[in-house]
Amino acid sequence: MKGIILFAHGARDPEWALPFERLRDRYAALHPDRPVALAFLDLMQPTLAKAMGELKRRGATEIIIAPLFMAQGNHLKRDLPALIESARNANDGIGVRVLPPLGEADEIVTAILDWLAAAAR
Amino acid sequence: MKGIILFAHGARDPEWALPFERLRDRYAALHPDRPVALAFLDLMQPTLAKAMGELKRRGATEIIIAPLFMAQGNHLKRDLPALIESARNANDGIGVRVLPPLGEADEIVTAILDWLAAAAR
Repeated sequence: MKGIILFAHGARDPEWALPFERLRDRYAALHPDRPVALAFLDLMQPTLAKAMGELKRRGATEIIIAPLFMAQGNHLKRDLPALIESARNANDGIGVRVLPPLGEADEIVTAILDWLAAAAR
Repeated sequence: MKGIILFAHGARDPEWALPFERLRDRYAALHPDRPVALAFLDLMQPTLAKAMGELKRRGATEIIIAPLFMAQGNHLKRDLPALIESARNANDGIGVRVLPPLGEADEIVTAILDWLAAAAR
């Protein structure tokens, strides 16, 4: 069974987590048969390793990581692969697939353009 | 005339800017009568003040700022208002409107959920 990790940056302000929590909850409601968890790079919990362990306990045998970042930088190119390696080591080498960042997904970019056209009147 | 600033975080890695540049270019192609510019909080150019000055030179009399962040944290609650104040002071007090972050826009969240449903099969 696939599990999904919504991977976000994290921040000092607790309000930062709210849109990610809402997204996780909506995903869970839409896909009740697929375990989903948030994980944060920094400043917020849980870590990627903890989220991976939770999904494994809930039955996931493969992990899909969706980085909720707009673009690739050192966080996704360098920090995330290191976190994945240590999280996999702590979770029996479970298989992991990483999705592109939001700004590289054409559907998301199109949605942002549509939203801007309406919001920026 | 309204001008639009796509406001992103910035990063050391030049690749970070690419999705924002593509978004700006697509916005410009869709809305040729509305000047658009990128601006970065940190580590990349131009600053918000420079972008605002550029849009003003291109005829903008009102600025709409779209923060390309997923959520509200200190960057949007504290840093952005301070940058706006100093950018307005440098640009004759031009009117500014700030859009919510992406993760608070229902259309964007729905697009992310649709994309996840397809990408995380």
